[in-house]
Amino acid sequence: MVARVRDSIERQGMMATLGAELIGIERGRVEIALRYDDRFTQQHGFLHAGAVASVLDSACGYAAYSVMPPDASVLTVTYTINLLAPAAGQHFAMIGQVVRAGRNLVVCRGEAFADGAERPFAAMQATMSAIYNRPGVSG
Amino acid sequence: MVARVRDSIERQGMMATLGAELIGIERGRVEIALRYDDRFTQQHGFLHAGAVASVLDSACGYAAYSVMPPDASVLTVTYTINLLAPAAGQHFAMIGQVVRAGRNLVVCRGEAFADGAERPFAAMQATMSAIYNRPGVSG
Amino acid sequence: MVARVRDSIERQGMMATLGAELIGIERGRVEIALRYDDRFTQQHGFLHAGAVASVLDSACGYAAYSVMPPDASVLTVTYTINLLAPAAGQHFAMIGQVVRAGRNLVVCRGEAFADGAERPFAAMQATMSAIYNRPGVSG
Amino acid sequence: MVARVRDSIERQGMMATLGAELIGIERGRVEIALRYDDRFTQQHGFLHAGAVASVLDSACGYAAYSVMPPDASVLTVTYTINLLAPAAGQHFAMIGQVVRAGRNLVVCRGEAFADGAERPFAAMQATMSAIYNRPGVSG
Repeated sequence: MVARVRDSIERQGMMATLGAELIGIERGRVEIALRYDDRFTQQHGFLHAGAVASVLDSACGYAAYSVMPPDASVLTVTYTINLLAPAAGQHFAMIGQVVRAGRNLVVCRGEAFADGAERPFAAMQATMSAIYNRPGVSG
Repeated sequence: MVARVRDSIERQGMMATLGAELIGIERGRVEIALRYDDRFTQQHGFLHAGAVASVLDSACGYAAYSVMPPDASVLTVTYTINLLAPAAGQHFAMIGQVVRAGRNLVVCRGEAFADGAERPFAAMQATMSAIYNRPGVSG
Repeated sequence: MVARVRDSIERQGMMATLGAELIGIERGRVEIALRYDDRFTQQHGFLHAGAVASVLDSACGYAAYSVMPPDASVLTVTYTINLLAPAAGQHFAMIGQVVRAGRNLVVCRGEAFADGAERPFAAMQATMSAIYNRPGVSG
Repeated sequence: MVARVRDSIERQGMMATLGAELIGIERGRVEIALRYDDRFTQQHGFLHAGAVASVLDSACGYAAYSVMPPDASVLTVTYTINLLAPAAGQHFAMIGQVVRAGRNLVVCRGEAFADGAERPFAAMQATMSAIYNRPGVSG
């Protein structure tokens, strides 16, 4: 399972572009790290919500993937993200966890933390889909 | 108003990194274009939901900003995005529109279209906040 | 199709309790009316968000159901609702419309209007699931 | 604070209609109980998502209210609810908790449990607004 997750995330051009780093994989829980970079800012110099959401989405997606059967692929159906405070800081930890897994849909929650803070600055609730036997969709 | 929006979007490192291009600004409506690039893909080679969300979020945020008083700054409070179909294609049009504007909160809807299709492949519902007189937050 | 929708909605105890009335059914669009009643208020005397959401959810669910195959049943996967203004008024029109329908998931948007107003006071983005052959789930 | 929450929730016609019962109030956490009743069902006989959402919304709203200044009133801005499984059972516990509180906005998460189950059947992420000095809005 760890190999499947690692292999899939390494195929994400977006994670490479953002410099996101896979920190931990457990069954139902994935942590990804992101560093501040002014290539990914919004207009006030904070990290853009889209960069935060990209990494949280991947963390939730792979948390879901980690509980799916080996022949399933994962796609994001929908997510809601709250930006609880500006994404100020240098090191960001993004954690995705499975809330409940059904046969076709897996619901996850994600939280983003800046510089070791205890309280998250962003919170996600995400619905992931398990895909089987669809051409062009693997992993 | 157009100058304020253009000036603010040009300060977004994230939009430059994604190569996003501002196509149109009207009062309450902003359109941004994005091209396919394998730097922004997910594991199946489609555009990553995070790239789509980043640009839709900016389109909605600036649509909201376009109806705010000149001394307001804009921050994303929360959004929900549905990925209706994989982000397959070469040219993507992301359109954000104001649904209703209050004094402090502006709610917008966004839609993303691939290669001139009539039906969107992604839909967003976003809540934006007007910020006044907060140090470090301008535009 | 109209008969299937009408039959299913008549089995909803919640719609009867709220006094909700089915106004219109087209392929991909359902309208339901609700009257103000102090049995359904929140603490300031406005209609409770839950009453608004209940009816919008049903309007979106049946809009989705109206485009599903005859042997499908419909369940709500997730929705996001924005309360754009307090639900003040006497007569409320709730409209659900399909944005895009896939094989298993149908995404809808809903809007709620008070007393014939042009601008909605609530907006929903909903994900509905088509269920096949599940015991106890029909219609 | 407990008296303020209790007083406000008793003014909600919707909670009385649903027979919802306030079980616990702590700073940042509110629990409300709901019993199965066929007046609040959807078409398959499960509890309607709207009934679940109404009570979770109130649990989250009062969790937010419990951390606001005494002169604030609370209104729901937006929430996302995932129905993780059909609302089957007789006794439902709905718990709202504050994730992070700002001056004007408080973000909460809610979970709904059936018949003492460990895993929730519904999950909410909600954004609540603190209102000051608005005529007709108190509590």
